[in-house]
Amino acid sequence: MAVYTEVTDDALAAFLEGYDIGRMVAFRGIAEGVENSNYSLRTTEGDFILTLYERRVDPADLPWFLGLMEHLAAKSLPCPLPVRARDGANLNPLAGRIAAITTFLPGVWPRRPTVAHCGPLGAAMARMHLAGEDYAPTRANALGPQGWPPLLARCGDSGDAVRPGLTGEVRTALDATLAAWPGALPRGHIHADLFPDNVFFLDHAISGLIDFYFAATDLYAYDIAVCLNAWCFEPDFSFNITKSRALLRGYQAVRPLSAAETEALPVLCRGAAIRFLLTRLYDWINTPDDALVTRKDPLDYYWRLRFHLQAGSAADYGV
Amino acid sequence: MAVYTEVTDDALAAFLEGYDIGRMVAFRGIAEGVENSNYSLRTTEGDFILTLYERRVDPADLPWFLGLMEHLAAKSLPCPLPVRARDGANLNPLAGRIAAITTFLPGVWPRRPTVAHCGPLGAAMARMHLAGEDYAPTRANALGPQGWPPLLARCGDSGDAVRPGLTGEVRTALDATLAAWPGALPRGHIHADLFPDNVFFLDHAISGLIDFYFAATDLYAYDIAVCLNAWCFEPDFSFNITKSRALLRGYQAVRPLSAAETEALPVLCRGAAIRFLLTRLYDWINTPDDALVTRKDPLDYYWRLRFHLQAGSAADYGV
Repeated sequence: MAVYTEVTDDALAAFLEGYDIGRMVAFRGIAEGVENSNYSLRTTEGDFILTLYERRVDPADLPWFLGLMEHLAAKSLPCPLPVRARDGANLNPLAGRIAAITTFLPGVWPRRPTVAHCGPLGAAMARMHLAGEDYAPTRANALGPQGWPPLLARCGDSGDAVRPGLTGEVRTALDATLAAWPGALPRGHIHADLFPDNVFFLDHAISGLIDFYFAATDLYAYDIAVCLNAWCFEPDFSFNITKSRALLRGYQAVRPLSAAETEALPVLCRGAAIRFLLTRLYDWINTPDDALVTRKDPLDYYWRLRFHLQAGSAADYGV
Repeated sequence: MAVYTEVTDDALAAFLEGYDIGRMVAFRGIAEGVENSNYSLRTTEGDFILTLYERRVDPADLPWFLGLMEHLAAKSLPCPLPVRARDGANLNPLAGRIAAITTFLPGVWPRRPTVAHCGPLGAAMARMHLAGEDYAPTRANALGPQGWPPLLARCGDSGDAVRPGLTGEVRTALDATLAAWPGALPRGHIHADLFPDNVFFLDHAISGLIDFYFAATDLYAYDIAVCLNAWCFEPDFSFNITKSRALLRGYQAVRPLSAAETEALPVLCRGAAIRFLLTRLYDWINTPDDALVTRKDPLDYYWRLRFHLQAGSAADYGV
């Protein structure tokens, strides 16, 4: 639920004067998104999203994110297209923040992902990977494997308050996962956070991929591993291999996986589960009780990790 | 920030089948509104707001609220028009709640109300009062004067933790206010919560009055008193008589106040300040620390009350 920064009418009017997108018709805060403030903006020319970047986003990364979105949108990927102001800038100051206007995408994110969502998701992710191949700038994945040990260290022993023994279990799993981490797999630009609330569907087809603010240059197959975690577990944390199979088939219909990528799926899935477990644990212990955001339970990813730890091979994911 | 109830795609699709408003194009949670869950809904036919009524709203009151909105909209007041389903019902079950679809209104609510907003606000409120005159059903104001003593009692001495002596001060002011409360002023349907976030402006004109879920049948001049509290104080709690004068002039250009209404303004303003002080105090002590809503400071209305207590006559409000 995200409107952290209020924008006054005067500030908004002055901001919009820099753009060639008509006069304002409506402006409403959007309840979705956790990291930034998002507004739905309607003008006489159409519908847009206004995003004010909040503290967690490094302003130095913004040109890379927006450049990637522009690159992908130009290749007809259904992602938000940053709108440039009259002076050509796609990032401008507003209400003490840096802000961007992007195009509005139709559709609805699936509150209850089904098998029918997973095939189109896999295909769209593969198209995104291919479309990004000739976007030259790179961005290191701050929340990739090398970021996990310091994140665990910053959590101290706080995991044990969430579940006795959690810190030790995660440390053991992390050590083993990093030792087995594949180095030579195909790399490129990945979304790295393609959860259901970042994927819009309309009439059973994908109509939007949004929120590229964790995107980075990393292993393509790691992006798949994030999605296997995010889309293929049921509310009781049981793994749904039918969803996984649909996701992987959808992906491979567009970009076939190499044998090495397929083999690496279990360890990549372990890593992805650890990544979300750790960031949720860190947020859990660092979110003030009166914050406006709902804290997400780190154990959701502990149970996923347990599945991945017992998965012997890619066959357990339906490949 | 208000999305308390999540709606699955399937539930929404089934719900929309009952309406003749086209197929869904987009569906996003709205960050505004505190009491209910609100979604912006776009269909192939246009834009709508979907509201799911949460616990604070008595379902028995909903037909009255929606009937009033329908009545006012039919008289061209810019308020949301409830959309009726194919079977004629404007209230239908969804996701374990009662829900309604209303028309979308353009505009933006003023984050920083200025004098220029207050004249149109007064005029729109007066038009609303006149337009409601022939809406026959009535609704007692549960948060009117007779509701304040029990509300104060339920707060116990908790006010003293917010500010030493607060409970006693409020009790004294409440007793004096109720003793002086005018009984015979013109009555009708009032909004009773016409704060800036419930009033949309577009090109300096009012484009929407929303959120009628505190509306009731009560003194017209009390509605004005609520607005004098909500619109005419600066962030440092100083009273801005220029705003007040503009609001009252705007109102009286449409519906002139009787001498008795004018005279009663100071006591009505005291009552309105007490009403918001008490509900905020009650929420302050009863909102869990981890709730998604921002608690509003009850003292904001203590400072307003202090102004109203020293106001000698309507002249202090610019009449």
